[in-house]
Amino acid sequence: MVEAANDDTYLLRPVGRVVSPLTDAASAPRQGDEGSPTAWLIFDAPVERALRDLRVGAELLVLTWLDRARRDVLAVHPRGDESRPETGVFSTRSPHRPNPIGLHRVWVLTVDGLRVQVADLEALDGTPVLDVKPVLGAVDER
Amino acid sequence: MVEAANDDTYLLRPVGRVVSPLTDAASAPRQGDEGSPTAWLIFDAPVERALRDLRVGAELLVLTWLDRARRDVLAVHPRGDESRPETGVFSTRSPHRPNPIGLHRVWVLTVDGLRVQVADLEALDGTPVLDVKPVLGAVDER
Repeated sequence: MVEAANDDTYLLRPVGRVVSPLTDAASAPRQGDEGSPTAWLIFDAPVERALRDLRVGAELLVLTWLDRARRDVLAVHPRGDESRPETGVFSTRSPHRPNPIGLHRVWVLTVDGLRVQVADLEALDGTPVLDVKPVLGAVDER
Repeated sequence: MVEAANDDTYLLRPVGRVVSPLTDAASAPRQGDEGSPTAWLIFDAPVERALRDLRVGAELLVLTWLDRARRDVLAVHPRGDESRPETGVFSTRSPHRPNPIGLHRVWVLTVDGLRVQVADLEALDGTPVLDVKPVLGAVDER
């Protein structure tokens, strides 16, 4: 059997930030499609070229660093409901996990240079943005 | 307007590795559902509790660190096809991007302690695993 050897680590450098009216984890929706306000992604100038083909109406996956999450939590009660059995975090969408990367499916409402307005983003104000990817269509449309 | 301030960086610590017959980026499928072999995720002992509710048949999102990708590429010809116009990487699934996080939708075939066998994973052998998340069902099933 191959041994896992994980002494190495990797450095994330955010490419932008979330600007949102959501400032408090307790009152934020648990998922983007559960009542999120519109929000802005404010990108840093060095990645402008990576953004240039984003269009209004596009459906995107936004990856964030959930900087207010705990990295030492390995099991949680799903959705904070103590009546539900404790579950390993790899079977939940809890923000608390060893590498707290948020994955958000959003719609583009406005593109204005380095500022992109989106619907359905439940991330808190100030959350670092790591990456943006298109939602994949059928194999023959790629 | 809020200014983006991104002097901070974040440290990823892999939670496991991919073990796969795929060893060469040039011959790997471009997406997991385009002919990937079965592969194993080999997790590190400290995250065993996070894994404990993974089940055969579950559909998962696996996040990886694409350690052979370039971080300085901001635009590419999609799917390496030079007849297609150069496109900002945030509108493509190219592995080359500022934070090369891979997102893979897989099926669980076997669970054996720290070893999880999956279908539809196009990541190369040795790729670090960062996180595992369930695919979300409808809002009322969460």
